[in-house]
Amino acid sequence: MAVALVQGASRGLGLHFCKHLLATRKDATVVATCRRPDEATVLRGLLAKFPRSLAVLPLDATREVEVREAAETVAKEYGRLDLLLNCGAMLHPSGRGETSLRDVSAEGLSITLATNSIGPLLVAKYFAPLLLNGTGAFGHQHADPDKRHQALLVNITAKVGSIGDNALGGWYSYRMSKAALNMATKNLSIELRRGKAKVVCVSLHPGTVDTDLSKPYHKNVPEGKLFSPEYSVNYLMHIIDKLHMGQTGKFFAWDGSELPW
Amino acid sequence: MAVALVQGASRGLGLHFCKHLLATRKDATVVATCRRPDEATVLRGLLAKFPRSLAVLPLDATREVEVREAAETVAKEYGRLDLLLNCGAMLHPSGRGETSLRDVSAEGLSITLATNSIGPLLVAKYFAPLLLNGTGAFGHQHADPDKRHQALLVNITAKVGSIGDNALGGWYSYRMSKAALNMATKNLSIELRRGKAKVVCVSLHPGTVDTDLSKPYHKNVPEGKLFSPEYSVNYLMHIIDKLHMGQTGKFFAWDGSELPW
Repeated sequence: MAVALVQGASRGLGLHFCKHLLATRKDATVVATCRRPDEATVLRGLLAKFPRSLAVLPLDATREVEVREAAETVAKEYGRLDLLLNCGAMLHPSGRGETSLRDVSAEGLSITLATNSIGPLLVAKYFAPLLLNGTGAFGHQHADPDKRHQALLVNITAKVGSIGDNALGGWYSYRMSKAALNMATKNLSIELRRGKAKVVCVSLHPGTVDTDLSKPYHKNVPEGKLFSPEYSVNYLMHIIDKLHMGQTGKFFAWDGSELPW
Repeated sequence: MAVALVQGASRGLGLHFCKHLLATRKDATVVATCRRPDEATVLRGLLAKFPRSLAVLPLDATREVEVREAAETVAKEYGRLDLLLNCGAMLHPSGRGETSLRDVSAEGLSITLATNSIGPLLVAKYFAPLLLNGTGAFGHQHADPDKRHQALLVNITAKVGSIGDNALGGWYSYRMSKAALNMATKNLSIELRRGKAKVVCVSLHPGTVDTDLSKPYHKNVPEGKLFSPEYSVNYLMHIIDKLHMGQTGKFFAWDGSELPW
């Protein structure tokens, strides 16, 4: 049995990762986490359809105690994780990214960093022992034994979190939070390959996806460049299915190209 | 008259930037800010020595109201800024960087991000109108009129804030906060060159400097690699004195080499 956990699974990419995994990986158990499972109606519908392969857990990644408790539950129930997908994110508490310094506020920065940077790292912290127990059921087990892995840790970041690629500016909180998360990915990739640890850690850019987060900006997206979540998840799973230790610590776009930090 | 503001001026690099500017730029007024001027004894000693060219203002960069009020005071008193140096930073509230995930905490991350990333950006936000009023009294006025500037905005980050250069891991909070600040530098460089705006924005890495922040780690620093603050400031001012619009949005080390993001 393969065990995957999706953090931020009530909507957007996280929800569609759950759907995709349940539909395509008959050997997998999917642990879907979100802040308020009671209100996650689509996820609850999935649970009715996949009662044996889906579990739904409450997890607000910004509350350290809740993250620890969720990890204890998963440890007790499954004893390991083969894939951890950190999907939870916000653009800005206002729903709009800052267009200029005028829109920047301490509160907006603080909430966005808590949700997009601190939360995913806390999830990585408490679930790392379970990843180290993984059986390598996701990704590509390389012919070279040194490149084989125990588990995969995927942080969904964004191309706008690339400092080197930043040509337009704006979106201070979101950009800074994703750059910080990219640093966390790099740090995790170093810590989780020390000694016997073999966890592949990557950042992935999903493209511009039709979700609640991006909704206010759809009219600015060139035709054919706004992906459905299904489309994006399909591409991202294609990358995830090929991951091995030789790729740990990198930042890939949906099309498999490597992005600059 | 040239006007410079140093945020985080009570000790470490900030304090030595003030000393250097007061000693070498007779035409300059230095506004030194720190959280508690009453307790900043060295700064108060400087004030006695340079009563006409030094002003000391209270400014806790994590308190948005205080940042705004300090900017209003500087606006009233001087009407502009030619150089803004964001120096305030902490390694971690515990005084020690995280050596592994075990040491990572929501609180440590949150306080470090507030001090090292949010604070400097709030300072940039409220002082940006004064920088746009600058007379270009610092840096190098390029022969090409398009590369001439009004003012300089310097964020002191660190090489350990480079994701691409990160080979050792650890120090999660500090590294993430400096990567986020590097993104802020890049964003600021884009916003502050729009239209008539000509503010050079850069991140600088000061080397490993003998300050309170680095004190617990001095025994690990190879001989000759631990700089005194005077030595580091001397090198950094050499870079600052040459800055022009052609360099905005970049990340330089103390020796002038460009660092990867």
